[in-house]
Amino acid sequence: MFKVTFRAESGEDVAVFAAFGESLLDAARKANIAIDAPCSGNGSCGKCRVKVVSGQVKSEKSIHISDDEYSRGIRLACCTYADGDIVVEIPGTAGSYQSGMRVADLNSPGGRAVFEAAIDEIRKASIPIENGFRIIDAEMDPPTVDNPMPDNERLARCIRSLTGTERVVIPLPVMQMLPDIMREENFKLKCAVEINGDSTYVYNAAAMSQTLRAIGVAIDIGTTSVSAIAADMSSGMILENASAGNAQIRYGADVINRIVESTRPGGLKRLQDAIIHETVNPLIEKMCRDAGIHPWEICRLSIAANTTMNHLFTGINPDHLRKEPYVPAFYELADIRARDIGVDINPGAPVIFAPNVGSYVGGDITSGVFASMMWNRDEFTLFIDLGTNGEIVLGSRDFLMGCACSAGPAFEGGEISCGMRATYGAIEAVTIDPETMDPEYRTIGDTAPVGICGSGIIDLVGELFACGIIDARGRFVREGRRIFRDEYGVARYVIAFAGESGRTGELSIDEADIESFIRAKAAIYSAIMTMLDSLSMDFGMIGRVLVAGGIGSGINIRNAIRIGMFPNLPEDRFSYIGNASLTGAYAMLMSDKAAELIKNIGRSMTYLELSVYPSYMDEFVAACFLPHTNSSLFE
Amino acid sequence: MFKVTFRAESGEDVAVFAAFGESLLDAARKANIAIDAPCSGNGSCGKCRVKVVSGQVKSEKSIHISDDEYSRGIRLACCTYADGDIVVEIPGTAGSYQSGMRVADLNSPGGRAVFEAAIDEIRKASIPIENGFRIIDAEMDPPTVDNPMPDNERLARCIRSLTGTERVVIPLPVMQMLPDIMREENFKLKCAVEINGDSTYVYNAAAMSQTLRAIGVAIDIGTTSVSAIAADMSSGMILENASAGNAQIRYGADVINRIVESTRPGGLKRLQDAIIHETVNPLIEKMCRDAGIHPWEICRLSIAANTTMNHLFTGINPDHLRKEPYVPAFYELADIRARDIGVDINPGAPVIFAPNVGSYVGGDITSGVFASMMWNRDEFTLFIDLGTNGEIVLGSRDFLMGCACSAGPAFEGGEISCGMRATYGAIEAVTIDPETMDPEYRTIGDTAPVGICGSGIIDLVGELFACGIIDARGRFVREGRRIFRDEYGVARYVIAFAGESGRTGELSIDEADIESFIRAKAAIYSAIMTMLDSLSMDFGMIGRVLVAGGIGSGINIRNAIRIGMFPNLPEDRFSYIGNASLTGAYAMLMSDKAAELIKNIGRSMTYLELSVYPSYMDEFVAACFLPHTNSSLFE
Repeated sequence: MFKVTFRAESGEDVAVFAAFGESLLDAARKANIAIDAPCSGNGSCGKCRVKVVSGQVKSEKSIHISDDEYSRGIRLACCTYADGDIVVEIPGTAGSYQSGMRVADLNSPGGRAVFEAAIDEIRKASIPIENGFRIIDAEMDPPTVDNPMPDNERLARCIRSLTGTERVVIPLPVMQMLPDIMREENFKLKCAVEINGDSTYVYNAAAMSQTLRAIGVAIDIGTTSVSAIAADMSSGMILENASAGNAQIRYGADVINRIVESTRPGGLKRLQDAIIHETVNPLIEKMCRDAGIHPWEICRLSIAANTTMNHLFTGINPDHLRKEPYVPAFYELADIRARDIGVDINPGAPVIFAPNVGSYVGGDITSGVFASMMWNRDEFTLFIDLGTNGEIVLGSRDFLMGCACSAGPAFEGGEISCGMRATYGAIEAVTIDPETMDPEYRTIGDTAPVGICGSGIIDLVGELFACGIIDARGRFVREGRRIFRDEYGVARYVIAFAGESGRTGELSIDEADIESFIRAKAAIYSAIMTMLDSLSMDFGMIGRVLVAGGIGSGINIRNAIRIGMFPNLPEDRFSYIGNASLTGAYAMLMSDKAAELIKNIGRSMTYLELSVYPSYMDEFVAACFLPHTNSSLFE
Repeated sequence: MFKVTFRAESGEDVAVFAAFGESLLDAARKANIAIDAPCSGNGSCGKCRVKVVSGQVKSEKSIHISDDEYSRGIRLACCTYADGDIVVEIPGTAGSYQSGMRVADLNSPGGRAVFEAAIDEIRKASIPIENGFRIIDAEMDPPTVDNPMPDNERLARCIRSLTGTERVVIPLPVMQMLPDIMREENFKLKCAVEINGDSTYVYNAAAMSQTLRAIGVAIDIGTTSVSAIAADMSSGMILENASAGNAQIRYGADVINRIVESTRPGGLKRLQDAIIHETVNPLIEKMCRDAGIHPWEICRLSIAANTTMNHLFTGINPDHLRKEPYVPAFYELADIRARDIGVDINPGAPVIFAPNVGSYVGGDITSGVFASMMWNRDEFTLFIDLGTNGEIVLGSRDFLMGCACSAGPAFEGGEISCGMRATYGAIEAVTIDPETMDPEYRTIGDTAPVGICGSGIIDLVGELFACGIIDARGRFVREGRRIFRDEYGVARYVIAFAGESGRTGELSIDEADIESFIRAKAAIYSAIMTMLDSLSMDFGMIGRVLVAGGIGSGINIRNAIRIGMFPNLPEDRFSYIGNASLTGAYAMLMSDKAAELIKNIGRSMTYLELSVYPSYMDEFVAACFLPHTNSSLFE
């Protein structure tokens, strides 16, 4: 057994003992350190890069590691074994999956504007941003020998008279604090309550002079990324936001790999623990710490997640999602409270879920479609959500049809060697000078570049193609000072040399990355084509295209069309609406009416199963070119 | 540190290491071995007797240990310290507080008859023994690609059509089993449900060919003893029953000591753990094991407990019960489910509580009064519950008044050197030959006598007094082969010599025991007198006297009157109704109507606080004689 010390970029060390035959990836899992491993540790994806800082290791040479990198100690954690006590550095891109960071598109001025515009549109549609949560001041007469009414009745009677509701529910956790809090300031206290029809539910209580708020948290749980907002339930004001990688990533990059893992002994529990105890709870804890929120103040949690994530989050076996006839355990899920699943907020806080529509169109889409307001318009809207699953919804006030395709994690930084989520340090926009082939780029937070996020990759591939640096198959066809070939002949383009970047080495994109990305964009394009075909519609009938996803604070539509990812429509029909799932989750959190409308969206949406649609595979193959085998589509 | 091995009568060993200065009582607590210590370990009560079998100890000589006992290794655990590795035997009376045993009065033919008579009277009063629990057979069409309805909707729709209720609640624990159980026998399954008004709550599910029942458990939680019944919710049939000592006993014998303990750091948690994890859960586990019940089959739990026990069971601070103006946190407690307090049954099982009436008249009394049916009669009934607290209720169809007095644990075998609960081996009836002074006795289970329970002590003291062996102050005034005096001059009467008894040594009662008992009976009698006085009533107006309590399978009324415990009324007005609290808890469990009526009893009963009643203390002192200072009351 050797001691393996993992060193985060922050300098923090976590040490663990690795048994003989245990890879560094296994050791990291044991130490609860999330290292991105989309292939689940078989050496094929090349994402689990670490840097051996000191000590001896045994390692196989990998195609994913260049000679230069190898000499600097870069290794794949899944193929490397300690051969003595060692110290290992976890690079920034892997580290970023672990720690909570602010949601980029809510903190950049442009991103915040997109979010606020969406909320504004909801308000304009006369959907009241209203809920039943209130802070009430309860002042009672103290008990006497002649008035010995017990504490709970005394409070219930007071609340009844203040709210006019018949039934007052004081759950056990509040009962347990009541005797002392009532006497703290002589039977004058504040309560956080929810008024719902004829009943009032008491979530929290504090002596009158104390601060007490009713706060809600909205979470978008993606396969790769998780984003959260904490907001005041009365004012709607956003108090804090954060995002993190989904810690389940170590069990596979996409939902199918996660489902397979969940069928292994203890797997479902491991995956539920990874999302709740290693992702959501730390994210909430971080927001609480940063914004001075007491976890018990959080009285409602809204969740927008795909169908698989909804199952794993609640510990319900998702295995039947991937087996014909592809039936989920639930579309809608009611009566869940935080304590039932171990989320560390007010134990009685209801957890409300945006409903699923099918095995692969879930609550992230129903909430995103709600936020898009396409269900409230006469014209046909095409809604495209760019995530690990790409989901496409087409419809109007009259109908909604949804389908899903497996885009892979490329848009969220997965399966791309320098990819990362849209957080600080990510390149989110790129232009390339056609002459010098030198790039200009913008990073989130204007820091040195650490990696490249979804919107940046679209730009980068679009510019490389427009400048004739790569061809229709994504192969490098020009030479220059930024273009290198490794010993196997795989070419790459260096965006930032080692000295310029904010990471351990250079920042580059190679032909394998571009190939991954082309598959991702082809999946999106062919899904759109197939859906239109199934409805006997053509592109021209689409009045608006809304692009959603937490891929950056904006998207260069011209580049996205240029590479054949989006249909060739006038650019002014496109809008980027940010992380619409999170916007929808926020709306559902704050507005009971919105929650009801999202439920209706789920019930009315038709689900198209692409995998059984005859022409889909052909469409996909045809789209695996830049822009397309049928280039007339993009003239 | 020395190793202390505790050996139970069963021969089972539990070993623990005792630190320097840790008494054997401390060590036993660490090992989770309940040794009765009403004084909480200050050496005054003499109950924590153990026998040192091997090894060296340091121990103070105690007034509670005779020379003979001392020479045989008998010590008080609270005043004894290991001085080397030792083996300690825990005597039967202490052991009996630990293990679950069958409820004596439900297993003896007489006791069962009393219980069934009470249930019969409830039925005769046209109170339907009905509840909403059902086992339903749900047969569904399996899903297809054209009928991909999710599992929960499919089941809910089926249940809706079977029950005719609008709302179907499938809580998370059932959701988590659903996908697999539904597919086990091709969408044919059984569900345990509760139909309540317009909604159906699903507790459990199993494939159609499996056994599935809805079972309820009723528990009487006393300060000293805990008794439980498991019954089928459909037929009402009793499947199993058990009783055990309340493991909180190690923190003090009466409710005041428990409340004081609960105010110490971590005390409330310790007391809640003692009742839930060390008493109720093992008791339920034992019943499940003995009767082949799966814990998830238990879908409802009813609790009859005094006000302090109700607070401690739910983890609610009881400290204000003992402080003016003596206000409990609650009379009624709703919406509690098993998972909220950690009872190991179906996590969604509702826990229903008989309501409290005041700080010292609790749910054990409202449920007992319900079972007595006194609230349904025109004549005045006096209800006397003999427990650690003695509670007295007087009333009729028109009114109910209740009060409580501290009788101490004498009726349940506490504070009496040879006392024990009414379980197997307890002497429950005694006669003494006036000439030879030899006793004849009957034990529960017809085994060798291990100790003496409440009804036996009443008999024993009554007979000793009737035979002129003790005087009105409880002092021994005759000599004989069964009467001994120790070195301090304290006399005792030997019921069974060492060879005849089922315990380590002889079985005897001494003057200190008799003094404890006289205080207990005086507390009861003076409470009755005071209550009548407060209502300007006299004995003659009482049509019936009902004596309740788990003190044995019957009570010798003549002896109870002879010693001045009960008023001098014609014997035929008295009935012993057994553990009425448990009967009431069973009724509340099985009958929704009974639960409602018990709630009404709680709301209508007037609470008399004896401690503020001027003449109570004088009445008590006057009653501390056999039968009374005013002997004309017993002519």
